[in-house]
Amino acid sequence: MEKLKETIKKIGTLNEDAMKKAKERQDFLTKPMESLGGLEDLSIKVAGITGNPMPKLKNKVIVTMAGDHGVACEGVSAFPQEVTPQMVYNFVHGGAGINVLARHIGAKVLVVDMGVAADIDAPEVINKKVDYGTKNMAKGAAMTREHAVRSIVAGIEVVEDELKNNNIEILGTGDMGIGNTTPSSAIVSVITKTDVEKITGRGTGIDDDGLKNKIKIIKKAIEINNPDASDPIDVLSKVGGFEIGGLAGVILAGAANRIPVVIDGFISGAAALIATRIEPKTKNFLIASHKSVESGHITALNNIGLEPLIDLNLRLGEGTGAALGINIVDAGCKILCEMATFEDARVSEKNE
Amino acid sequence: MEKLKETIKKIGTLNEDAMKKAKERQDFLTKPMESLGGLEDLSIKVAGITGNPMPKLKNKVIVTMAGDHGVACEGVSAFPQEVTPQMVYNFVHGGAGINVLARHIGAKVLVVDMGVAADIDAPEVINKKVDYGTKNMAKGAAMTREHAVRSIVAGIEVVEDELKNNNIEILGTGDMGIGNTTPSSAIVSVITKTDVEKITGRGTGIDDDGLKNKIKIIKKAIEINNPDASDPIDVLSKVGGFEIGGLAGVILAGAANRIPVVIDGFISGAAALIATRIEPKTKNFLIASHKSVESGHITALNNIGLEPLIDLNLRLGEGTGAALGINIVDAGCKILCEMATFEDARVSEKNE
Repeated sequence: MEKLKETIKKIGTLNEDAMKKAKERQDFLTKPMESLGGLEDLSIKVAGITGNPMPKLKNKVIVTMAGDHGVACEGVSAFPQEVTPQMVYNFVHGGAGINVLARHIGAKVLVVDMGVAADIDAPEVINKKVDYGTKNMAKGAAMTREHAVRSIVAGIEVVEDELKNNNIEILGTGDMGIGNTTPSSAIVSVITKTDVEKITGRGTGIDDDGLKNKIKIIKKAIEINNPDASDPIDVLSKVGGFEIGGLAGVILAGAANRIPVVIDGFISGAAALIATRIEPKTKNFLIASHKSVESGHITALNNIGLEPLIDLNLRLGEGTGAALGINIVDAGCKILCEMATFEDARVSEKNE
Repeated sequence: MEKLKETIKKIGTLNEDAMKKAKERQDFLTKPMESLGGLEDLSIKVAGITGNPMPKLKNKVIVTMAGDHGVACEGVSAFPQEVTPQMVYNFVHGGAGINVLARHIGAKVLVVDMGVAADIDAPEVINKKVDYGTKNMAKGAAMTREHAVRSIVAGIEVVEDELKNNNIEILGTGDMGIGNTTPSSAIVSVITKTDVEKITGRGTGIDDDGLKNKIKIIKKAIEINNPDASDPIDVLSKVGGFEIGGLAGVILAGAANRIPVVIDGFISGAAALIATRIEPKTKNFLIASHKSVESGHITALNNIGLEPLIDLNLRLGEGTGAALGINIVDAGCKILCEMATFEDARVSEKNE
């Protein structure tokens, strides 16, 4: 708990001076003012986050956290639970979607076992296992309050351990966990006070009956556990997951260390909701990469006050959307740092 | 004219067999079916365009074409005409927006002088100058019909000359020309039969009075020249521009050589409108990168039947939006080619 308090205390506000300088430079670059729209805004935001008016994003890190969910036994997913560890090995061998897109953008992937329901035998995987999967939230709390805090702290530690040896100039979040859209829907429903029906989707691809059952199970979990919407750690412990808690920790640690955090899809959105409810200033450090097919995602983003950069009908998770988002943020920062000014290039300015 | 006819004749349809194979592979990759949405669709489209079920996009080329416009003397732009050659030198020196984003995605930029109103003294610039700027279309035809054809053929030659020495696996289009949103609005208005007011924007940043004047000038140009909407070359000659004709040629040559062509913003959209009216099958080979701030752009895309990948409030041109689009198409093709299948990775498939 000390580590969490300490991290929250470090979270500040955007550096207005760096943002002003970045905006001034954007206006001197050889283009009509603001003609690169969103790319310019992103570069100015990153300047504010990092405090550097010319931010370069060389070291890109995507943290992909895996965990299992007791509620999977209720038939809420189209895939069997054994897929979670199988996909962790796929991450290690470089064959998953996130590996391909991380290579595409030049990012490192940190794979973390937050609570897979099997032992993971791979030294490349960071072991932060809180437990062998959560309990079935349709029958009681998914985890104890102590485990909820431990999962968040584990996420903080993952970022801090990496920072001991390497710079991180931009962070992406990602998830893997069969069944994890179910706790994500529950979290978004409770915190944003939205009907379960409105924010529950088909996850990996359940059919109509599966969707009805999933909604019923989520409602039951909320009813049985009665999570306190004003206490994000209570919500996490009662209807959350270890990887969701871990990602909330990654987000808080990013904010505390003034690193832009690009959040992925629905599960990362639920984690961001928890992180921003723990410390609202966290929001300043977040960039939403994409709008997921899962309907609850945009509800979470709107509630936090974020707008997604792209909408490509993605719903894979793992950090795949975050990878595409990081690439766009990188493009914006390169525009700011690498373009010539009107003076440099001897280009005439606008008629007055 | 022979070259143009020959190019049009080569334009075919998508390779259904390659698309089927690409779709089958996407469905065997370690992700829920179709969970990478737009990325999967793009990879399948590129398979259909190239005929290769595993397309790799190593050689990326963005063609940025520059031209001047007689109509600039009517005060339709916020910048003076001398900016066109100045920006061409900026392209050569690597300081412009397109240079930064082309480096970001690993693309080569071909800079072409299609009709700048000044001599360009730089061997790196491909000289296809049709004339020293178009005539003022508010007083008569922007160019002769012969010059319109010559500009399209020049665009075809740029692609074919590059193909003599290098592969091109994906093409992007880009433009530079002070005043060129004015002919683009005129083209889109005439071909799509849309009111000038609805598809005219502020270009590089004119004020309210400037916008009123611009609309008046475009209407006058259409009235005086009375272009034949059913004859795209007539439209190009009367209210077009050399770089717009050149880009139409690049697009046709891309289609004829089965290269995916990622089109940029408003000016490229007007060129795509002309190219697809010359040969409707051209559409199969096009990918729209982004939705421009210029309102006429989406009108042009909808008319062609294209949906833009992203909307980041861009309005710079040069190929900057195309660069971001190419990067997303590249990501889609890498997903198709590099991800592990369920069998490769020994991951369990969906419950049936």
